Amino acid sequence: ARPRVGYFYAGKKTTAAFTESMLNLKVKDFQSIPVVVPDDMTVYDAIIHMFSEDVGTLFVIDKDEILQGVLSRKDLLRSSIGTQDLNKMPVHIIMTRMPNIAYCVNSDSLIVAAKKLIEREIDSMPVVEETERGLVITGRLTKTNITRAFISLAETHDL
Amino acid sequence: ARPRVGYFYAGKKTTAAFTESMLNLKVKDFQSIPVVVPDDMTVYDAIIHMFSEDVGTLFVIDKDEILQGVLSRKDLLRSSIGTQDLNKMPVHIIMTRMPNIAYCVNSDSLIVAAKKLIEREIDSMPVVEETERGLVITGRLTKTNITRAFISLAETHDL
Repeated sequence: ARPRVGYFYAGKKTTAAFTESMLNLKVKDFQSIPVVVPDDMTVYDAIIHMFSEDVGTLFVIDKDEILQGVLSRKDLLRSSIGTQDLNKMPVHIIMTRMPNIAYCVNSDSLIVAAKKLIEREIDSMPVVEETERGLVITGRLTKTNITRAFISLAETHDL
Repeated sequence: ARPRVGYFYAGKKTTAAFTESMLNLKVKDFQSIPVVVPDDMTVYDAIIHMFSEDVGTLFVIDKDEILQGVLSRKDLLRSSIGTQDLNKMPVHIIMTRMPNIAYCVNSDSLIVAAKKLIEREIDSMPVVEETERGLVITGRLTKTNITRAFISLAETHDL
């Protein structure tokens, strides 16, 4: 039996159209510009850099510009109340390293990326390109980006 | 003239149904438990408390449990690299005070609240009840809550 064909008002879309529009949201369309620091930068300088760039997460790279680590505001706050001299401690001592870094790629679905941020309990992760040399950072995906996407869904549907 | 009535497949919904489901998302359904500290707590103790409670924002209350201020991880990091003794500085010195505190109420639309987080460039705000005595804190709304709501929209629509 053939399915019964329905008639729709002009301009109306089904939930299927919404589902599709949510699936079409990609990391590349909502990501931010990454802020990177060298792995020999001091923790003190990293804190200053975080404020001057006004971001919540810094990505640490080596001389070949390959991702080596991630520094969250939480990591920096933890070390700032420690006993060590922040001017003598390089960031590679306190950063989160591979294989513990959560990351995503340009073409990932924003929903999958959002789930990863929640599961890993992080505010931000690098958007990378996987190369033979290692992970090259191309962007930064944050809960702020997801919040903007949430708002854009409402606006797309004229709330 | 009466509108032409259309026929729909069983189980299909129009975008109108989605729009309605987004408008029905309220702050009260996604908020987290607030973490409060007294206004005479030291900055050092507030940092320790932020770690032990694992939150990104603390709300500061007076003796009558009325909202007096907000402390973000950023505020605490800024003061931690200052020259003052964190064990001698009370949080009321560095907190954001009224009328500069963004807040929302239980019944607010999650979309409106999300827009407020973006506009004010904050990660979190108190959910309050407005009383004659002042603002009583009932919850905490964060970009993590909005991210969870974004994921729940996808799941509601079976992506």
